[in-house]
Amino acid sequence: MKIGILTIGNELISGRTADANASFIAREINQQGWSVEAIMSVGDDFTKIKDRLNYLLSMTDAVICTGGLGPTADDITSAAIAAAFGLPLYTDENVLNHIKEIFAKYNLRWIENNAKQAMFPQGAEVIENPVGTAAGFFLKVEGKLIFVIPGVPGEARRMLPEGVLPVLRKHFPEAELHVAKQTIKTFGLGEGAVDNALKDIDFNALGVSIGFYPVFPENHIVIIAREQSRQKAQDKLKKAQDEITNRLKQNIFHYGDETLEEVVAGMLMEKKLTLAVAESCTGGLIASRLTDVPGSSEFLERGLVTYSNKAKMELLGVPAAVLGKHGAVSEETARLMAEGVRKIAATDLGLSSTGIAGPTGGSKEKPVGTVYLALADGKKTHCRHFAFRWDRRRNKLVFSEAALIFIYDYLLGRLSNE
Amino acid sequence: MKIGILTIGNELISGRTADANASFIAREINQQGWSVEAIMSVGDDFTKIKDRLNYLLSMTDAVICTGGLGPTADDITSAAIAAAFGLPLYTDENVLNHIKEIFAKYNLRWIENNAKQAMFPQGAEVIENPVGTAAGFFLKVEGKLIFVIPGVPGEARRMLPEGVLPVLRKHFPEAELHVAKQTIKTFGLGEGAVDNALKDIDFNALGVSIGFYPVFPENHIVIIAREQSRQKAQDKLKKAQDEITNRLKQNIFHYGDETLEEVVAGMLMEKKLTLAVAESCTGGLIASRLTDVPGSSEFLERGLVTYSNKAKMELLGVPAAVLGKHGAVSEETARLMAEGVRKIAATDLGLSSTGIAGPTGGSKEKPVGTVYLALADGKKTHCRHFAFRWDRRRNKLVFSEAALIFIYDYLLGRLSNE
Repeated sequence: MKIGILTIGNELISGRTADANASFIAREINQQGWSVEAIMSVGDDFTKIKDRLNYLLSMTDAVICTGGLGPTADDITSAAIAAAFGLPLYTDENVLNHIKEIFAKYNLRWIENNAKQAMFPQGAEVIENPVGTAAGFFLKVEGKLIFVIPGVPGEARRMLPEGVLPVLRKHFPEAELHVAKQTIKTFGLGEGAVDNALKDIDFNALGVSIGFYPVFPENHIVIIAREQSRQKAQDKLKKAQDEITNRLKQNIFHYGDETLEEVVAGMLMEKKLTLAVAESCTGGLIASRLTDVPGSSEFLERGLVTYSNKAKMELLGVPAAVLGKHGAVSEETARLMAEGVRKIAATDLGLSSTGIAGPTGGSKEKPVGTVYLALADGKKTHCRHFAFRWDRRRNKLVFSEAALIFIYDYLLGRLSNE
Repeated sequence: MKIGILTIGNELISGRTADANASFIAREINQQGWSVEAIMSVGDDFTKIKDRLNYLLSMTDAVICTGGLGPTADDITSAAIAAAFGLPLYTDENVLNHIKEIFAKYNLRWIENNAKQAMFPQGAEVIENPVGTAAGFFLKVEGKLIFVIPGVPGEARRMLPEGVLPVLRKHFPEAELHVAKQTIKTFGLGEGAVDNALKDIDFNALGVSIGFYPVFPENHIVIIAREQSRQKAQDKLKKAQDEITNRLKQNIFHYGDETLEEVVAGMLMEKKLTLAVAESCTGGLIASRLTDVPGSSEFLERGLVTYSNKAKMELLGVPAAVLGKHGAVSEETARLMAEGVRKIAATDLGLSSTGIAGPTGGSKEKPVGTVYLALADGKKTHCRHFAFRWDRRRNKLVFSEAALIFIYDYLLGRLSNE
């Protein structure tokens, strides 16, 4: 089955926003075993939306559109698509009531504009939006399917698998193969190194397709098997996963769709361990990532962003003499920070970061990208040292990633030699 | 002048790589005052490249293509474009020698495939690649221009301004308008409300184009004027900006391209004020956003993520009685947190957040999305209370945004009545 993607919005053709939906949708479509014929972006322009849609339909079985479903005057996707097929617009009372309820619930002032979000081309079926006011819809015209979902990435990411893919599967049953899919998340190897480590595996012979997706600072591998039976697909997938695991071993931190912070938080909660964090160069990012996980108050007792030397001394008890002799960015300081925060918070574990995120503050000995991480458990304090080479924001991100991996390795008992 | 963008590569339509070039090129084109008619992506397929290029040429004056210029078998862009216009390929000896020199310099083994990178459609002019082996080219056919540059983002980012834009300017001199552009960043109004507040302004009559760009939780407005003289463009822009400012007033926090954290950090540094932050529901995100700004150690003395009640008592001196009577999520606690962190850090300002990010922990009185923020300066402690309605991650983001806006308003002297 051939599919076209049409992303709609002035922000896309002005270059203001990079198009996150197109690549997400393309990936999902490919993972179903279908193919993407072309991707187009067009501005919020009545005639152009019609023309581009017709062009894409001329070469595909279905077109998935995103964007232009908002309440403002420049959101004209529904009207343009109705006009493309000579259909009038109708108001869906259920959708209208749902939107009005949301407005009432949050005490928002109702503006008549918003009623536009309940209008759809005649014959369209509504696709529910579980996370916003903009419902989507699909339409069958001359044996082809046209889907429209919102351009807000968080909404598109929910509505594609929940509202679009099931309809496609139903209308094009030849696509009814059993699909087994696995995401394998790695950290610590570049994309080239991951590719190289796996290059002797013949995935074709294993009957599995493979894709590499860098999600800074991680590299994700996705393997997919499509077979007549679920069991057969899962068997093939398992074999490919074992081969990959053999080669990447400890660079793999997760099989599935959880984030690293979710993985680490889950392990801490399962083991009923508490944690306190003392951050310098990561500036609160480790705590912020951990508190992105619901229920993190169960294990995160406190976080201290000890950005100044004064804060390191007062809050963590790092002696001025150590800071003077070894510097704030040193193994010695990192160790005392981890031990200090663990002690004052009376937690099972204490974690610390100290380093140089940049762009200034580096030296020949300790260049920008240097970081020391320490993890104390009351018996032993482990320390790791890295030299990364990114800009300030990415350094902060990779520092926080290495810190979370540090806890992960500790909880798996991998630090016995460190 | 109307321009089309065609990005070529199997990695784009498989969703393996998000298309970074399309939005970059679109932005540059818009900033020249030209317009992007459509953006398309297509796989490395001979016939499809030809078809899509012809479609784009049918509606534009020029098409900029990226990708498919490498040495491997799937790189077929030059051959496909030559075939689209019935042109033979020729070898450019200068480019061939240049590539051979690079191979010799880095001791790389020469494979005859690489000679492909020196082959161009007859009549094409070479666009030099200052950072790689893949040269680009442009071709004039029936009064229209076709550009091809590599898909590697670092190369495309050099060759577009250096090799493509000058040729476009020369061939389409009517495009020599002066462009003035302004971004206006707002917080606190939804996209619909911003649109509604501005709807009586006749931007056409003012000679200015306007775009709305939601960047959660902010809404950005971009206005652009294109005129024969720089002065005239700036005058028109100024007039439109004044009209917008009149209507959105204090919801505007910045004119330009800085982030909110950069704006706030800049003001703190200029006024030589120091800050300490005590965060509960934002979990370190306020500190992390502030430390994204280079030089933030100048003003951010420390940040405390007092996630537990124990941490609020021990570190900030919030009495158990207050927590018991009013709860951790309350105005009273927020005030004591801000005052406490200011006092122990001995900074000019203390900022606090306490609230319910969700998904659980809400009640009828204090639903998920409730947040109390306090800002203490030693003379007075200000407090703000909001009820947002997002998911956990977006609640954290909008809480941190409201906190930074709080400091911003304080520094502008807007809190006299709060």
